[in-house]
Amino acid sequence: MKRSEVRAAQKRAAEMFDHIGIMLTPEERETIEVAGFGLGNLESQGLELVTYINTDRYCAKELVLFPNQTCPEHLHPPIGDEPGKMETFRCRHGVVYLYVDGENSGTIQVEVPAGSEEYYTVFHEIELHPGQQYTIPPGTKHWFQAGENGAIVSEFSSTSRDEFDIFTDPNIQRMPVIVED
Amino acid sequence: MKRSEVRAAQKRAAEMFDHIGIMLTPEERETIEVAGFGLGNLESQGLELVTYINTDRYCAKELVLFPNQTCPEHLHPPIGDEPGKMETFRCRHGVVYLYVDGENSGTIQVEVPAGSEEYYTVFHEIELHPGQQYTIPPGTKHWFQAGENGAIVSEFSSTSRDEFDIFTDPNIQRMPVIVED
Repeated sequence: MKRSEVRAAQKRAAEMFDHIGIMLTPEERETIEVAGFGLGNLESQGLELVTYINTDRYCAKELVLFPNQTCPEHLHPPIGDEPGKMETFRCRHGVVYLYVDGENSGTIQVEVPAGSEEYYTVFHEIELHPGQQYTIPPGTKHWFQAGENGAIVSEFSSTSRDEFDIFTDPNIQRMPVIVED
Repeated sequence: MKRSEVRAAQKRAAEMFDHIGIMLTPEERETIEVAGFGLGNLESQGLELVTYINTDRYCAKELVLFPNQTCPEHLHPPIGDEPGKMETFRCRHGVVYLYVDGENSGTIQVEVPAGSEEYYTVFHEIELHPGQQYTIPPGTKHWFQAGENGAIVSEFSSTSRDEFDIFTDPNIQRMPVIVED
């Protein structure tokens, strides 16, 4: 991803935080993580993150999704003796459609990102509005997409080790590579 | 504490959440925890809490302090093989003055609750404004007080086991006893 694209996404995410009154420090604003997953289409598949704290016991982040932006399907595997990351998503703004492994009704409310259909395989739908939350058990495949106004989601979890995440799409690179432009 | 006092404090805390746009479910609003610590003066020493999630790996809460309300000095001891609870306080609204064990300048910005002076023994001051946070290591004595407009603080932590908290004041009962009135 180009530095200019990262900067633009950081600015847009910061404006969404401002809009709902979530305060960040100047340093947090400057370092919002922009994850494009190496797919080259941030608007469609991407995620913006602020990590408040990540210790060897717990982690807390804010996740930002632009309108209809999708965080691609993945799971958190066990690391050593520890079960995979367990996460609680609490919607703060907008609507988020979360899909996890489990029963599905045959239809879902969002469109899977075009061209990546084969990498979306779990369709048990959970619709989260502000104030609603859902806890994803360790090792559970999941993906999520914002509604048309985007979404902000607080993530409370066990320790985060994003570099070990297993994505269904083999083309995905979780850790961003930024090209100066 | 009387049920009517609990209800009034729940309503007041819910209004503070509304004021800054933190959304709760109807059930969360109805069950806001009101901790008076058995001291009979909630306005002076007390805390209001919403626990979003508490698993055997992590915990997330919102803490509400009314204007100048103080959460009394305590620490989180080790439980079995696990070190004590580790917590990150992130201020969302108002100002919170946090005191932990460590160097102090000889003066602090708040008044210790009248009549309980002997139970406040640590005075290393951290002043947190919205967007600022501080992580309290396990086993560290700490207490905190809101500024004149009250405060809302997000707490991210390891597993919460409030019943084991050790308070400096031996008169304190952490787990509330509510009397119907």
